[in-house]
Amino acid sequence: MEPAIILVRPQMGENIGAAARAMLNFGLTDMRLVAPRDGWPNPKAVAMASGAAGRVLDQARVYPTLAEAMADIDYAYATTARGRELTKPVLTPATAMADARERTSQGERIAMIFGPERAGLENDDVARANAIITVPVNPDFPSLNLAQAVLLTGYEWSRDSLPAQPAPQGRRPDGEATATRIEIEKLADHWEERLDEAGFFFPTEKAPAMKLTLRNLWSRMPLTRADTRIFHGMLRQLIRRD
Amino acid sequence: MEPAIILVRPQMGENIGAAARAMLNFGLTDMRLVAPRDGWPNPKAVAMASGAAGRVLDQARVYPTLAEAMADIDYAYATTARGRELTKPVLTPATAMADARERTSQGERIAMIFGPERAGLENDDVARANAIITVPVNPDFPSLNLAQAVLLTGYEWSRDSLPAQPAPQGRRPDGEATATRIEIEKLADHWEERLDEAGFFFPTEKAPAMKLTLRNLWSRMPLTRADTRIFHGMLRQLIRRD
Repeated sequence: MEPAIILVRPQMGENIGAAARAMLNFGLTDMRLVAPRDGWPNPKAVAMASGAAGRVLDQARVYPTLAEAMADIDYAYATTARGRELTKPVLTPATAMADARERTSQGERIAMIFGPERAGLENDDVARANAIITVPVNPDFPSLNLAQAVLLTGYEWSRDSLPAQPAPQGRRPDGEATATRIEIEKLADHWEERLDEAGFFFPTEKAPAMKLTLRNLWSRMPLTRADTRIFHGMLRQLIRRD
Repeated sequence: MEPAIILVRPQMGENIGAAARAMLNFGLTDMRLVAPRDGWPNPKAVAMASGAAGRVLDQARVYPTLAEAMADIDYAYATTARGRELTKPVLTPATAMADARERTSQGERIAMIFGPERAGLENDDVARANAIITVPVNPDFPSLNLAQAVLLTGYEWSRDSLPAQPAPQGRRPDGEATATRIEIEKLADHWEERLDEAGFFFPTEKAPAMKLTLRNLWSRMPLTRADTRIFHGMLRQLIRRD
């Protein structure tokens, strides 16, 4: 069962709409609102959401208190900008959502709680949560807005449900100088010019696609500086013969 | 060395400012702009950024073409909303940033490339990248904006530089029904009321803090339904004796 996203005393309708969009990016649809400042429904929230995110708002439930919004929740994470003086575990989103997936698989109902813009959750709100999520941002510039905090949490919720990917192929050989970007650009330019002169890009209407394919080919190769010299040299040699 | 964030033909100044904020959350400061629609500097970008994020904008470099913005870059990831018909590796942010950290540690200079709002990168732009990053969002509702795409990429860049955390302590015993949220609320209410009657919350000016501590205590406990019955029972018994 998917986690509930509880917004406590949200202020701007636009931010509620943006939070609904952020949720739906990661398939989350159970939005709960505690005492939204400007009442509910809120036309500014609807305007900010769109399409299916509007349906998330339509289905959102509104509660007078956080306690009521959490009535069916077994385990809740409160998001705060910094750790508090509370004796609760303070988790990164990664650890918290791994824990949440584990609890969900055991049948627990999970919620993530977000506070109002600027002020954040009050201690009374945090007291109702079992654990705290703090996103590890630059301590000199923490500036996540409400929708961004929801976004990162939703991202972590779905992140590890994907199959692991292998790293891209084609690391360059160890100990060899990597071709710089500008060296690869020059190589691609050189080949494109000479091939153009040689009438390679024919018929004319296919030339742009052919050039694009070739650009892609060069930038995909794990070329060393030595490799680029070889390709330049081969090209010069081919032209000389011709 | 930190990755460069390259915004290609960004349109709204507000979004450039929001991208600078998103970057700085994760300590990224090397912003490069390719042919920003409304010229540069852009007062709307400055208004959206704030404090230190304004300095990211001050230091941003502007280039007429993506090729020039990438002159010193060894390996670049293009972010696109969906995989293209290009024969390049398509990576999640997680895999891409693990790869980027590895390349950085070997001395390569990395860039992440973001396209204009709505339209995204053109094929000519993507052709200059070595790999593609696609955020795995809900295919029925992909709605990341520019700053959010930058945010998730920056988050992944810094995510695994943190020490791993243990999961929170105190899972409930296997096979026992977990206390619901409402059962815990009722338990906390019951204890608070009876303790209040018993004069526990003394002196009065300390009562709110004492109650908060107690709420935190209850919600931190991995209580089963049976546990809550025990705590109710103990309380009743204590009062009866008293």
